[in-house]
Amino acid sequence: MIKKLLIANRGEIAVRIIRACREMGIETVAVFSEADREALHVQLADEAYCIGPTSSKDSYLNFTNIISVAKLTACDAIHPGYGFLAENAAFAELCRDCNITFVGPSPEAITKMGTKDIARETMREAGVPIVPGSTGIIENIEQSLELVEKINYPVIIKATAGGGGKGIRIAKNEQELIKGINITQQEALTAFGNPGVYIEKYIEDFRHVEIQVLADNYGNTIHLGERDCSIQRRLQKLLEETPSPALDGEIREEMGNAAVKAAKAVDYSGAGTVEFIYDYRNRKFYFMEMNTRIQVEHPVTELVTGTDLIKEQIRVASGEKLSLKQQDVTFTGWAIECRINAENPEKNFMPSPGKIHMYLPPGGLGVRVDSAAYPGYSIPPYYDSMIAKVITYGNTREEAIARMKRALSEFIVEGIHTTIPFHLKLLEHEKFVEGQFNTKFLELHDVMKSV
Amino acid sequence: MIKKLLIANRGEIAVRIIRACREMGIETVAVFSEADREALHVQLADEAYCIGPTSSKDSYLNFTNIISVAKLTACDAIHPGYGFLAENAAFAELCRDCNITFVGPSPEAITKMGTKDIARETMREAGVPIVPGSTGIIENIEQSLELVEKINYPVIIKATAGGGGKGIRIAKNEQELIKGINITQQEALTAFGNPGVYIEKYIEDFRHVEIQVLADNYGNTIHLGERDCSIQRRLQKLLEETPSPALDGEIREEMGNAAVKAAKAVDYSGAGTVEFIYDYRNRKFYFMEMNTRIQVEHPVTELVTGTDLIKEQIRVASGEKLSLKQQDVTFTGWAIECRINAENPEKNFMPSPGKIHMYLPPGGLGVRVDSAAYPGYSIPPYYDSMIAKVITYGNTREEAIARMKRALSEFIVEGIHTTIPFHLKLLEHEKFVEGQFNTKFLELHDVMKSV
Repeated sequence: MIKKLLIANRGEIAVRIIRACREMGIETVAVFSEADREALHVQLADEAYCIGPTSSKDSYLNFTNIISVAKLTACDAIHPGYGFLAENAAFAELCRDCNITFVGPSPEAITKMGTKDIARETMREAGVPIVPGSTGIIENIEQSLELVEKINYPVIIKATAGGGGKGIRIAKNEQELIKGINITQQEALTAFGNPGVYIEKYIEDFRHVEIQVLADNYGNTIHLGERDCSIQRRLQKLLEETPSPALDGEIREEMGNAAVKAAKAVDYSGAGTVEFIYDYRNRKFYFMEMNTRIQVEHPVTELVTGTDLIKEQIRVASGEKLSLKQQDVTFTGWAIECRINAENPEKNFMPSPGKIHMYLPPGGLGVRVDSAAYPGYSIPPYYDSMIAKVITYGNTREEAIARMKRALSEFIVEGIHTTIPFHLKLLEHEKFVEGQFNTKFLELHDVMKSV
Repeated sequence: MIKKLLIANRGEIAVRIIRACREMGIETVAVFSEADREALHVQLADEAYCIGPTSSKDSYLNFTNIISVAKLTACDAIHPGYGFLAENAAFAELCRDCNITFVGPSPEAITKMGTKDIARETMREAGVPIVPGSTGIIENIEQSLELVEKINYPVIIKATAGGGGKGIRIAKNEQELIKGINITQQEALTAFGNPGVYIEKYIEDFRHVEIQVLADNYGNTIHLGERDCSIQRRLQKLLEETPSPALDGEIREEMGNAAVKAAKAVDYSGAGTVEFIYDYRNRKFYFMEMNTRIQVEHPVTELVTGTDLIKEQIRVASGEKLSLKQQDVTFTGWAIECRINAENPEKNFMPSPGKIHMYLPPGGLGVRVDSAAYPGYSIPPYYDSMIAKVITYGNTREEAIARMKRALSEFIVEGIHTTIPFHLKLLEHEKFVEGQFNTKFLELHDVMKSV
């Protein structure tokens, strides 16, 4: 078992990992940038070391300094959390070379899933449904025109090395297609040094539904059900829930099995998430991507399955078997997570960093708060704006929603703006209450102006 | 369904009830003494009214003022919480006379269970095991000597009108018995105006195990398993857990059935707790008393059964049926509650009221906090010293304990002394960890001096 673990992250996820370690009797080492001296993860860890200046590049992404602290403090493992180095295959490889356990999958699995056309081909071979489109990179315009004959417009042109909304272009006709391929190739060459692009059918009306998977190094790969993350603003998830109001038992099982196939296809190890485009009108789903790390929204899965995903990650990385098999996974009740950001929803979600004067998180039955905030804490403007995750659990969706409204209405955060008023409006929105929404919900509905 | 509810209480239980109401769409009215103007329950309720000066007698026990507020604000129900008026049959009757729903059992049930020898006889008739002893009031010394021939010393002499540790005397031989009966009768006459005493076998080595029951007005009475509350200091519970480490499936079922019998014997309605003396060495249990109200430690039952007991109380009082039947009750995992008091465990638990400067409750997976404290809150010295209940849930007892240690170690309360250091010691104590303890545990072990 891992004895001492360095957490190469900050904020609530660093706190989350420290908590799991404390419960497991594992010593913890926090690292922090100069801007994070007063951060909660620094206070909660057994030891804490500054790894560089404010800029992430020089601190939380600084391979050398992080590995040095791990070595100097005799850590036998590093947990990357999410973001920063979590999906950095080179860092995972460096850990391996330095004889430090990276709490996550192998560098090979990270690379395969991180390269879009390779992931797509791997899924195709594994029998995981992928969006109709090209096989591998587009060779020439004729080939793409032939393809579109079969799948029809609109299509999406994607740079294989792209990501995060970059290197993507939609084409609704031949003219846009030809122009789009040329421009995307040029841009991709400049931005990523790789001009490769591929084409997929553009699905407009879908829900974002993802499956949590867990795998150990003894051939056990299981899934823990889905999360519906369709409520997004500019590709940023704002609210997640499980189960998905859009899934029935049949699709759920198919999607779960597909996710297990996806993970097995890359010899996955640890906790991961297979994201799907769910074309709910046609009851079809397609592989979107796999996130080879723990996700922000993992708590909702923990609440309905009774599984501590961080502990499972650590156990697997320690060489243990998963603590449960597929048949042991049960789903009880409903869980919802609201991401509370230091942003002003009245002013187009403008970031609102600054000092939190009064702070009192909600409590009581069915309420979980994962946060690194405290009274008097100054939120630095340099990193992620999320200050807390409020997760509620109920026997039904109705109860989980009612509890979330109750919890958010008693959550006191003074001194900064937060997205709490946005969430309170969203939770009252008729379409949300009915479970009728897709990923365009927030484009179509001005929630802040709804009654 | 109840539309507007007055909470005739303060502190965490008032907050707990307000939370349930908010989730159910029920309006809330808080009442407060002059010392409680800044209390959290006052801030969280929809409306709040001062009902008198600091003294409980003039405020939280003030029938007239409470009923007046309820009437003036058009409340259709009153929830008494625990303590104060919760087991006051006269108040329950006054509510009925005023056409206000009292969220609790009938005045008759309260009276029957509140009068010790009547409760004892009622249980005997219902077939619930009672401690061997006299049938009804002791008539004369000869009768008591005959009785002790059968049950043997030591015995306990109890005033039927006594309670809370008053009007109780232990006798280890004939001399002590004769003297004890005379003195207890005289004292009881003076203190309670009723000289009646009865005799029971004195069981020294037992665990306090209680059963949560729920009953509606349609003949449904169920139990939700046990709570082990053996960790007590001067009859005050400090830590409770469920399941009990001392019970096996057979005893659990017998005790649950006995509790249901006890509740049925007084036509019980709502949530109640049947407390038992569990003579674990002989695997025998005896009725101790029934608390005809919600209890401080109810959250542990909520966490392992997934039932919201306050909501059930309100539903039953509204004339609805219980939301679940006995066969629907399932028990998953382990839950522990630590009562955090404003007391100094280093100085013999001396009360430590005052202003809380910094306050940050613990969070994360499996941690629930029920509290009315906040940063800047001044704990008044006039009422109960409990400032928070920390409840942790785990898949096993080991996990629940580890999580509690983690939660308490991150709980920040500055400005006053609390019992957090005591609990951290207790949770490390070998005997506690092994589950080997009875109600004398804290008399026998100086936890604060243990390593």
